[in-house]
Amino acid sequence: MALAVPTFEDVAAAAARLAGHAHRTPVLTSRTADALAGAQLFFKCENFQRMGAFKFRGGFNALARFTPEQKRRGVLAFSSGNHAQAIALAARLQEVPAAIVMPHDAPAAKMAATRGYGAEVIVYDRYKEDREVLAKRLAQERGMTLIPPFDHPDVIAGQGTAAKELFEETGPLDYLFVPTGGGGLVSGSALAAQALAPQCKVYGVEPAAGDDARQSLHTGERVKIEVPRTIADGAQTQQIGVLTFDIIRRLVTDILTATDAQLVEAMRFYAERMKIVVEPTGCLSFAGLLHSQLDLKGARVGVIISGGNVDLARFCEFVSG
Amino acid sequence: MALAVPTFEDVAAAAARLAGHAHRTPVLTSRTADALAGAQLFFKCENFQRMGAFKFRGGFNALARFTPEQKRRGVLAFSSGNHAQAIALAARLQEVPAAIVMPHDAPAAKMAATRGYGAEVIVYDRYKEDREVLAKRLAQERGMTLIPPFDHPDVIAGQGTAAKELFEETGPLDYLFVPTGGGGLVSGSALAAQALAPQCKVYGVEPAAGDDARQSLHTGERVKIEVPRTIADGAQTQQIGVLTFDIIRRLVTDILTATDAQLVEAMRFYAERMKIVVEPTGCLSFAGLLHSQLDLKGARVGVIISGGNVDLARFCEFVSG
Repeated sequence: MALAVPTFEDVAAAAARLAGHAHRTPVLTSRTADALAGAQLFFKCENFQRMGAFKFRGGFNALARFTPEQKRRGVLAFSSGNHAQAIALAARLQEVPAAIVMPHDAPAAKMAATRGYGAEVIVYDRYKEDREVLAKRLAQERGMTLIPPFDHPDVIAGQGTAAKELFEETGPLDYLFVPTGGGGLVSGSALAAQALAPQCKVYGVEPAAGDDARQSLHTGERVKIEVPRTIADGAQTQQIGVLTFDIIRRLVTDILTATDAQLVEAMRFYAERMKIVVEPTGCLSFAGLLHSQLDLKGARVGVIISGGNVDLARFCEFVSG
Repeated sequence: MALAVPTFEDVAAAAARLAGHAHRTPVLTSRTADALAGAQLFFKCENFQRMGAFKFRGGFNALARFTPEQKRRGVLAFSSGNHAQAIALAARLQEVPAAIVMPHDAPAAKMAATRGYGAEVIVYDRYKEDREVLAKRLAQERGMTLIPPFDHPDVIAGQGTAAKELFEETGPLDYLFVPTGGGGLVSGSALAAQALAPQCKVYGVEPAAGDDARQSLHTGERVKIEVPRTIADGAQTQQIGVLTFDIIRRLVTDILTATDAQLVEAMRFYAERMKIVVEPTGCLSFAGLLHSQLDLKGARVGVIISGGNVDLARFCEFVSG
C-alpha cells in the first residue's frame, strides 16, 4: 500500500495532537549571531524538545494515529539514535508496547536510555544481519506496527509542527534553514512554510561527506550513497525517503552542505555565545547558512536547531579541540 | 546622601525602561528536573540575557536614570566580572562614556570583551591598591558617576525585572530560588514577589564557602567575611549591601548554601538534560533547592539562572571532571 504524501492539513492536525504533550520550544535570538550572518536570525530550539530532539514530534504523532488494535499490539522501530528514544517515550506516554531494534555495538548509554523509557531493546549484529529485514520480520511475527524514522506521512507531519510554531511566533520569514538527514524535518518544514510563509525559501543542509539529498535534488532521482563519515550522526542516512523526496523536489529551494569543521565551529558559537548545547547534526542549519553563498543581507531567517543529544565528554572534545 | 530603598514601583519603572533593550528571556521546564525535585520547576534563563547575565538589567536601568550631564561625563564601575560587561554594553547602547576598573591579573578575555563594548579599561594592582578608593578617586577626578555592582536602588530595581517577567509568565509560585552574591538579584526578586506573588517564599542561595548573607540574616548585622574560595566567581562577595540587606531581612525567607561539588552536579544536569550552559554562580539556585531540607512536594517553584558566562575550557573541566 502506497502511503499518501502529507499536506499542511496533516501538519496542523499533528499540532493539535501534540498540544500538551510536546514542548512548544522557545525561539532564541542573538545579536552576535545576527552580526555574523548580516541578517536577523530566529533559532527554533528543538534541543529543548522532550527527549532532546524534534523526533519526539513525529514519533508521538505517528503513535497517536494508531488504531486501538495497533496500540494493543505495539510499535517497532529500528534506530540507534533520537528516533529510538522518541518512539520509546511516545509509546510510554500513550501506553503502547514498544520494541526498538539496535545494533549490538550501540552506545550503552543509548540502550539504557531507551530501556529507561520502558521499551524492549532488540539487539542485532550489524555486520551479519540487515536491520530492515530483521525489523520487518519481527513486526510481522509480533503483529507490531513498524514506524520508520522519516519516510512516513505521520512522521513528516509531526516534524513539520516545529516550523509551524516558528512561523506563528515570528511571522513571515525570507529563508528557513533545516538540518537534513532522511528529509523528515526539512519536508515537514517545507509544508509549514508553503502554507504559512509562501515567500520563504527553504534550504536543507546536510553533511558535506554525505550529500545524497543534494545529489538527489539535482539529478531528479533518489541517489544512494555509502554511510557517510561525519560527526553529524543524525544525518548519516544513505538515501532520502520516497515521500520526503516528493516534497523536497517540489518545495525545497536547494540543499546546502556543511563540513565537520564548520559544524564544530557552530557548536562552539552556540555554547559560548548563546549558552546552548547543540548536537553536531543540530548545527547543520547554522553552519550551512554561515558558509553559503546566499545574499542574506537584512533578511529575516529561521534556523531550526534539531537536537541537543550529544555525550558531554564528546561535546567537550569538540568544543575545546 | 543616603539612597532610598527601592520598591516594586521602581522595578515596574525599570521594566518599562528595559523594554526593547533587554531580552525577555525564556522560561524553560524539564520533566526530568521536576522528577528530581518532586516539584514543578520554572527556570528563568538569564544566561540568555544580553552579555550573558542578568547584570545587564541593573546596569542598563542605572544608566537610563542618568541626567544629561551625567551621561555626558560618563560612568565608572569596578568589576572583573559580569557587572563590567553589563555597564560597558549598557553605556555603549546609551552613548555614555564608560571606564571600568579591573585588577591587572583579570583574564585577558574579560578585558578584551569589556574593551570590545567600547569601554576604557583601567588596570590596578590588586595587591597594592584598594579598588574602591581608586574608583572613587577616579570618579571624582573625572566627574564620572560610579555605579556599584549591587548596592544601588536603580541596580536592584533593574535586577528585579527578571522575576517580574517570570511571575507574569507562570502566575503565582510557591517558592523562588535565587543565586546570591551581594544580594542585588535576590532583593530585586523579592520586591517582585511581594507585589506579584505575596504567598511566594523567596530563598537566596550562596556558596557554602562564603555564607555572609546567611550569617547576616541570622545575626541581624551585615557580616563581613574573607574572600570565599568557590567556583561561583559571581558570588565571591565579602559583604552584602546596605540596601540589599534592608530588603533581604524584610522579604527573604532564608538564605541557603550550596557547595562547589553541588554546583558542578547542577551544571552537568543543565548541560546534559536541559541543553544549556550555566556558569557556576548561575547553578546556585537549583543546587540549593535540590539539597535543601524544604518539603517542595507538588509545589510550583521558580528557579532563577543568573548567567552563562563561563570559559568553555573551564566549563568542560567542570562537567567532565
